[in-house]
Amino acid sequence: MPDEMAQPLIRGRGPGGGLHHHHHHLEASASDHSDPIIGILGTGDFSRSLAMRLVASGYQVVVGSRNPQRFAALFPEEAEVTSQIEAANQADLVFMALFPEHYSTLAELKVALSGKPLVDVSNASHISRGGRSNAQQLADFFPECAVVKGFNTVSAWTLQTGARDGNRQVFLCSDHLHAKSWVMQISHRMGFTPLDMGLLSSSQELENLPLLLFPSWRIPVVLLLGLFIFFYLYNFTRDILHPLITENKSNFYRMPVDTVNVTLPCVALVLLALVYLPGVGAAFIQLRRGTKYQRFPGWLDRWLLQRKQLGLCSFLCAALHAIYSLSLPMRKSARFKVINEAYKQVQAGVEPLWDDEAVWRMELYVSVGIMALGLLSLLAVTSLPSVSASVNWREFSFIQSSVGHCALTAATVHTLLYGWNRAFDSRQYRFFLPPTFVLVLIPPLVVLLGRAVLLLPCVALQLRRIRRGWEKGRQIRFVMPQETNNKMEDVSNV
Amino acid sequence: MPDEMAQPLIRGRGPGGGLHHHHHHLEASASDHSDPIIGILGTGDFSRSLAMRLVASGYQVVVGSRNPQRFAALFPEEAEVTSQIEAANQADLVFMALFPEHYSTLAELKVALSGKPLVDVSNASHISRGGRSNAQQLADFFPECAVVKGFNTVSAWTLQTGARDGNRQVFLCSDHLHAKSWVMQISHRMGFTPLDMGLLSSSQELENLPLLLFPSWRIPVVLLLGLFIFFYLYNFTRDILHPLITENKSNFYRMPVDTVNVTLPCVALVLLALVYLPGVGAAFIQLRRGTKYQRFPGWLDRWLLQRKQLGLCSFLCAALHAIYSLSLPMRKSARFKVINEAYKQVQAGVEPLWDDEAVWRMELYVSVGIMALGLLSLLAVTSLPSVSASVNWREFSFIQSSVGHCALTAATVHTLLYGWNRAFDSRQYRFFLPPTFVLVLIPPLVVLLGRAVLLLPCVALQLRRIRRGWEKGRQIRFVMPQETNNKMEDVSNV
Amino acid sequence: MPDEMAQPLIRGRGPGGGLHHHHHHLEASASDHSDPIIGILGTGDFSRSLAMRLVASGYQVVVGSRNPQRFAALFPEEAEVTSQIEAANQADLVFMALFPEHYSTLAELKVALSGKPLVDVSNASHISRGGRSNAQQLADFFPECAVVKGFNTVSAWTLQTGARDGNRQVFLCSDHLHAKSWVMQISHRMGFTPLDMGLLSSSQELENLPLLLFPSWRIPVVLLLGLFIFFYLYNFTRDILHPLITENKSNFYRMPVDTVNVTLPCVALVLLALVYLPGVGAAFIQLRRGTKYQRFPGWLDRWLLQRKQLGLCSFLCAALHAIYSLSLPMRKSARFKVINEAYKQVQAGVEPLWDDEAVWRMELYVSVGIMALGLLSLLAVTSLPSVSASVNWREFSFIQSSVGHCALTAATVHTLLYGWNRAFDSRQYRFFLPPTFVLVLIPPLVVLLGRAVLLLPCVALQLRRIRRGWEKGRQIRFVMPQETNNKMEDVSNV
Repeated sequence: MPDEMAQPLIRGRGPGGGLHHHHHHLEASASDHSDPIIGILGTGDFSRSLAMRLVASGYQVVVGSRNPQRFAALFPEEAEVTSQIEAANQADLVFMALFPEHYSTLAELKVALSGKPLVDVSNASHISRGGRSNAQQLADFFPECAVVKGFNTVSAWTLQTGARDGNRQVFLCSDHLHAKSWVMQISHRMGFTPLDMGLLSSSQELENLPLLLFPSWRIPVVLLLGLFIFFYLYNFTRDILHPLITENKSNFYRMPVDTVNVTLPCVALVLLALVYLPGVGAAFIQLRRGTKYQRFPGWLDRWLLQRKQLGLCSFLCAALHAIYSLSLPMRKSARFKVINEAYKQVQAGVEPLWDDEAVWRMELYVSVGIMALGLLSLLAVTSLPSVSASVNWREFSFIQSSVGHCALTAATVHTLLYGWNRAFDSRQYRFFLPPTFVLVLIPPLVVLLGRAVLLLPCVALQLRRIRRGWEKGRQIRFVMPQETNNKMEDVSNV
Repeated sequence: MPDEMAQPLIRGRGPGGGLHHHHHHLEASASDHSDPIIGILGTGDFSRSLAMRLVASGYQVVVGSRNPQRFAALFPEEAEVTSQIEAANQADLVFMALFPEHYSTLAELKVALSGKPLVDVSNASHISRGGRSNAQQLADFFPECAVVKGFNTVSAWTLQTGARDGNRQVFLCSDHLHAKSWVMQISHRMGFTPLDMGLLSSSQELENLPLLLFPSWRIPVVLLLGLFIFFYLYNFTRDILHPLITENKSNFYRMPVDTVNVTLPCVALVLLALVYLPGVGAAFIQLRRGTKYQRFPGWLDRWLLQRKQLGLCSFLCAALHAIYSLSLPMRKSARFKVINEAYKQVQAGVEPLWDDEAVWRMELYVSVGIMALGLLSLLAVTSLPSVSASVNWREFSFIQSSVGHCALTAATVHTLLYGWNRAFDSRQYRFFLPPTFVLVLIPPLVVLLGRAVLLLPCVALQLRRIRRGWEKGRQIRFVMPQETNNKMEDVSNV
Repeated sequence: MPDEMAQPLIRGRGPGGGLHHHHHHLEASASDHSDPIIGILGTGDFSRSLAMRLVASGYQVVVGSRNPQRFAALFPEEAEVTSQIEAANQADLVFMALFPEHYSTLAELKVALSGKPLVDVSNASHISRGGRSNAQQLADFFPECAVVKGFNTVSAWTLQTGARDGNRQVFLCSDHLHAKSWVMQISHRMGFTPLDMGLLSSSQELENLPLLLFPSWRIPVVLLLGLFIFFYLYNFTRDILHPLITENKSNFYRMPVDTVNVTLPCVALVLLALVYLPGVGAAFIQLRRGTKYQRFPGWLDRWLLQRKQLGLCSFLCAALHAIYSLSLPMRKSARFKVINEAYKQVQAGVEPLWDDEAVWRMELYVSVGIMALGLLSLLAVTSLPSVSASVNWREFSFIQSSVGHCALTAATVHTLLYGWNRAFDSRQYRFFLPPTFVLVLIPPLVVLLGRAVLLLPCVALQLRRIRRGWEKGRQIRFVMPQETNNKMEDVSNV
């Protein structure tokens, strides 16, 4: 290395490379081995994967085990497997890869570990609110050490594959800044993206993270299932029970495909309307209040946060509806029906069969339906993390808002065309139940009407002023440039 | 912390951790609060989201407002909301979250802000070329401060969700390196990926970024629409106008589905050919010139850059074409036709109906068509940012080039089989207009022929030599190993 | 900048910003230009793209060429293009963008380059195991320099587009830590994610990386093709040869669509079973051994690593099968058959046609099939890098394991319903060959039975104990918290 670069290190004036400060510093001061020695206590899968990763990143690793002999074979040979006390003595920084319930058995290591950073990678066995987190308990037990919480959201798998795929983010928190930033550098060098989560008090939250199972999906999925069951039963009553009772005609064979296929679009359309309803609602609330400097009610905030999931559920139903519809003519039942119809026609000797209205209706709603599906697919694709990350927020809000409303409109038109004039045909009201599409059209029409009102020049102007910080009565001077756009995005997308 | 680690800090010899140099330094020197105090001027959405994020990342935040009382409630309680002058005095670094037009009203803060880094997060209201950017105006107004441009591409939404989803990149530029690198560390700690865009002169470009709406998609989408309209009218004339005029037969019902469905594949095939045409063209230009050390004409460069978008547009049309085709037998019209045909057959009392050629033709082009779609889907999936990021460039170029040409070939064969011998049937030339597939086949056949020529041993050899740096007449000695491959990729993919 | 921040730099006590330590350091000590001067030797595509990127990132770039005059035009004007010796003298760090075979011609630069970091970006022309890598040869030739291997996996294209899309990871290795960390900072500033791969000895591996073409896909794709050919011939014999020989009936027209369509689901189901077979096998091995602290046999490890690819291949076949099935009624052949059936029926004058069993069977297996496809799509989507990166490993393992087994069950039921009672119909055993679905059902049924056994309370309990570190005979005290989950994930997913 050039002198002017190497010198300061010898003189300890300035470290070598920012990212790798510590080992340079260590180099300068204590050991002449330029890297810190990383200790790992425990010999489980995580411990092994961690050792592999650290070795692969060029660190010197020492593993502490109760019986080194039998576990050594499971570790990369570059890693030294020794007794716990030995490892604790050698290491500059220690990963605690043990069950939290075993922390208490490490009493004899207290002296050896004193003053060293300890990384608590443990997870809670169940979601806990309140109480001391594992990391906090570790800190209580080793008050001399700088406890850092982290890596618990990383799986042994990701460690082995070196974060090529799998989540690259490592959440870290600690009350000791130097220890935290040191662990940050190590995780950087391991190919992860460290994310500082503040003080050790957030460790509980971090320990709960891996225990959560799609929290943001719970409500949308429940809603999806609920709507599906409701509409399935509704259609079952109208299409299968009614003919059975009135004409004693058995249509049970329609249950697996036909009934499912009339149910899916209902769910899809209602869910899609629910994606855009809260945005319209929020706009009206702001107009009513004449300000945007008041929080929305909690339920509305939560609803706004679930739109992405609602939209994807809606897309899933729409896609299944498309496949089911396309599979209709393939079925034996359809085939038999055509043949029998042809047979009847021949027996009756009627003129060639053609119902122009029926033809037009179907050609139109098929075509519009396909377009609606195409637009929904665009929305689904742009909500993929990597795609939404590669568009700027103006593009994202354009897709999610404009294209989204086009999709909703197309889907509504598709349903209207499907319904045609049958809403006004009394025979369609079996058991006095209106045709399904009549019920289903209510939410989207509400959204589209509300949206239409918001687009009225006067209303639109007022809303824009409010979103730029204007307030009924008083005038704010300081507002944020992007406001309009952010707000728009904030309210009508994601 | 171990002594040999803590010592130097106390003595201020070397900072703690690279990523978090500054607060360590501050700790070492001035305050014993180890973090810088981050100030925010303005109280809009962006300001609030920024405050949340900074607090969540463990920073001490002070917000400057015109009337702290009424805005305090909107900010996290960890953040101190106070007067502007107070905030300016306390802060070590200040985010300017105000309308640029209000900068001038901050005259009284000049002393308090003097010498401090100011981060300009503002966006332009409209795309501007030339003139002074907001950031430059800020720098003019606060000549004492180190103005850093950045975060303007980040939305309030992304800030709130802590960059879990949404774009992680933060573009920064400044004439003051220390201020810039400090802001880089802060954005790192907030979980973003800072990207250094050089000096403040690039701030204009940064301010334009969020105003761009899919710039790279404009031409391909316009092309898509143009082609669609042209071919739709062309098919409308041949399939609907012609029978109406000649046989007075009304086929208008075919407009929504049939006509759309014969138009989509035309657009898809032409667009797909346009993806591979420039690559072939570039190769011939290089052969002609006998060197690769000359830039391609501008239009060709731009064309080469739009191939990904062209390919995805083509895929969209192909997918829609598939769905439309699959929906054909589902329609009432198809059903009526079958029944009437059966009726006619019975009336005529003819032998069982079977046209072996028609059957073979259709079986073949359906099968080839599905394969073409499958290959196109592979291309589409690999062009997803996260997928293309997980393959090395040789794999990427293999998919985009080899698989791409297979898809083009399959699509061409699909069209040839569909056309069958009808190109030579004079009755197909209604109004002397050739069948659509005849027009559509020209571009892909040009590409495939050009490609075939380039694969001739002699030509291929010559081209390889040129791409390895050989030049007509003279011999270059120093070329880059990856050249061939990069060039190949450069020309025939992405 | 505030004094307490600027001071130390002047005094050279502590550098400015971690990320950009070096130039600050240089600033403090040597030049008053705050950035290092980056040299590039060579003028190929890579060299040019590298120069653009470095200039865009605000670095001062000097390019060394044999004849600067003619190449200058190809470089950004901010970059200085000069003679090689001149460039070597000016630069603080040099990128070697030349053919490795030309390294030896740089003898005259030895003095000028001495003590400077050299970045070897070259690739091997062919995969090599053993021998000296290009980088090692460079180090042998310039023993005075700090050779860093890296950027060889980055394409000229990615450099130009500034890592907006394309792979952001840059793998670096070197025996000189300061040089490596300096290059890390540079790549960081260029917008890449540097990943430390340890010492220069790993350079061979790095040079092989770009030469690998989907190594993890080879076996699954070969398996896919093999299974396809086998089942295609099998079905060809049963459905086309048999009628030809026995009834002299020519069904060759069924080859392109029908036969392909009965072959694809066979391949899909077998591949899907192969995804979950190794997990079950691994569990039984652990039960047998009574411990998890023994490595699985190599073939099982490799198999476990290929499950993602196997699953995606299976999904591809399933999706194609769906499209083929949906296209069936669209074909002329299907149309002719319906018409002829109607004709026959009329001639026979039979009652309306209806086979309730056939109808039920088909309605059921169509519906179940669509659901299986839906579940498989969920699996496919979650295996997209960006999606799997955005879920925690518990969610990932839930999807891949639970949803995966649901998909396998649905697909098996779909096949059973398709088979119906025909397995027991002797006429189905043409040439004594059992119907395809009989063969195909074996692997999935094995998996599902094995899985059922593992779910028996006693077995499940034993397995859980083993995966938490319990061992037959002895009791381990120190095991890792996440073990169960990680192991579970490790074995049954990804």
